[in-house]
Amino acid sequence: VTLFDGARSSHTPELAFSAAGLHRAGELRDRAGTQKELMARPDARAIIICADTPVLGFANGELLAHHDIDLATGLGDIVEAAFLGLDGERPVFGLHLAPSSHEALKASSALKLIDMRSIAIQGLFTPDTVNDIGTAKALFSWHARHRFCSNCGAPTTPASAGWKRVCEACSSEHFPRTDPVAIMLAVDGDRCLLGRAPRFPATMFSCLAGFMEPGETFADAVRREIKEEAGVDVGRVRFLDCQPWPFPSSLMIGCLAEATSTTITLDDELADARWFTRDEVRLILAGQHPDGITCPPRMAIANHIMRAFAEGVSGS
Amino acid sequence: VTLFDGARSSHTPELAFSAAGLHRAGELRDRAGTQKELMARPDARAIIICADTPVLGFANGELLAHHDIDLATGLGDIVEAAFLGLDGERPVFGLHLAPSSHEALKASSALKLIDMRSIAIQGLFTPDTVNDIGTAKALFSWHARHRFCSNCGAPTTPASAGWKRVCEACSSEHFPRTDPVAIMLAVDGDRCLLGRAPRFPATMFSCLAGFMEPGETFADAVRREIKEEAGVDVGRVRFLDCQPWPFPSSLMIGCLAEATSTTITLDDELADARWFTRDEVRLILAGQHPDGITCPPRMAIANHIMRAFAEGVSGS
Repeated sequence: VTLFDGARSSHTPELAFSAAGLHRAGELRDRAGTQKELMARPDARAIIICADTPVLGFANGELLAHHDIDLATGLGDIVEAAFLGLDGERPVFGLHLAPSSHEALKASSALKLIDMRSIAIQGLFTPDTVNDIGTAKALFSWHARHRFCSNCGAPTTPASAGWKRVCEACSSEHFPRTDPVAIMLAVDGDRCLLGRAPRFPATMFSCLAGFMEPGETFADAVRREIKEEAGVDVGRVRFLDCQPWPFPSSLMIGCLAEATSTTITLDDELADARWFTRDEVRLILAGQHPDGITCPPRMAIANHIMRAFAEGVSGS
Repeated sequence: VTLFDGARSSHTPELAFSAAGLHRAGELRDRAGTQKELMARPDARAIIICADTPVLGFANGELLAHHDIDLATGLGDIVEAAFLGLDGERPVFGLHLAPSSHEALKASSALKLIDMRSIAIQGLFTPDTVNDIGTAKALFSWHARHRFCSNCGAPTTPASAGWKRVCEACSSEHFPRTDPVAIMLAVDGDRCLLGRAPRFPATMFSCLAGFMEPGETFADAVRREIKEEAGVDVGRVRFLDCQPWPFPSSLMIGCLAEATSTTITLDDELADARWFTRDEVRLILAGQHPDGITCPPRMAIANHIMRAFAEGVSGS
């Protein structure tokens, strides 16, 4: 089993947001006039986000994520624009339309608003396009929460073609957040630990997960989270794969871990946690568990970590 | 060669900031009165940071990082306090003293101010203590730059015993940043690509590195950075190890990558970049390169990635 590989292992055929997307062409972001010049090109396209939701169009009866930029800029007030990169020679932008446009866009028969999660679960676009839409969503969600300078409180303005914000009052530069989250499966021989968050459907179980903190390695974060949430101790930790996760702007770091204790003590972040055998996990993944236990869809790294375990990867 | 292991591979005996530090006891952070009650305990200790610099004491002629909390709180105005965790039963806090205290602290014969980098390079404390000092430094550097709400511009106040800031005006919660940075060595058979940043000493070369962006996997970030900075194309990417890096608050993600082109085209982030053979890298690591080429110290992950390559790990 190849545990990590730029070309993706056999565990991750459908891991969403992980395909390499556009050539980002970062060297163009700070070139004076780039944004204006590239947006004026007749072949320019735009991915549109409004109220955290991708705005899709139609071409020949098929859903379409890339709009003609002239059409896109006419749909509503543009809160933010970002140069996402080049598709061959073609510039692709993200446009963030004002939330006030949301109802009008929803009412348009030429458009369809589908939430990001559904797009990824249903695989409505090629993996690279799903990644590009996710990148635009993550970027605009960061912009929306960073209109003011955290250093001095003054308003900030976007710069670098949408890839940073600057404060003219104190000269601070602010860059998009990418928050690492450890997500992991503690393994005790032939069993693994799955938990149910209070917000989950009653039958759904998944890997435990939590935001990494300053000063932590992947392994330390994995150990802390499993101990905090389930009271289980962990020894060796093994990195499996990562996944950008635009809800709102995380980087999931998937690990398997060797449990060194088995008694479960829940904190209030979990509604339940249990040990499941490898056979049970296979049944859960196949949608055939006798108690109707389900798990996250194939597009999520939790599914892929569970699949790796089901296929025999261990925590040590 | 074990490429990743919670217990650290043989490549990483001295990787700084990576030892598991204190038991963080996160469940205590939000318990009412915790901070006050634990700080009042006679066995409580404090790690002190002033103007980004650790403030050390002496005990029996030895440098000491953990001060008696009564002594520590009397040294100057406390800008921020954070509950770092438990050392056995003993609570350990971080204290951020006002930069205005800096000169007075420096003048005290009972104290010694040593910058974080020197502490790590010289291995002045045990690895877990170095990690705790680094965590305090990263946390306070984040607090210092987040006194205002990025969402609405109002002042924020610390909460959760120093692990978040809240905005009373708009109810936003803000958590410490941990910025993932891809750091990598492109490998072409028996050669690897090292670069020299303009700020480096004239003879020093290191791995290339850059902040990860929303929507990127480790592999995508590695490919983008190597292409942007040196014009070299990369195929497979292999994760080696990670390192928390408190300058100011990064998470280094160390990778080896298979080069698929070899012509170097520099952008302005690098002053130079060259291919070095495995033998040359061994000489650099040993401080015996005929042209006097040097590299980052053993405490930095760049050194460990170079060491892995020197010992035969490849990019594919």
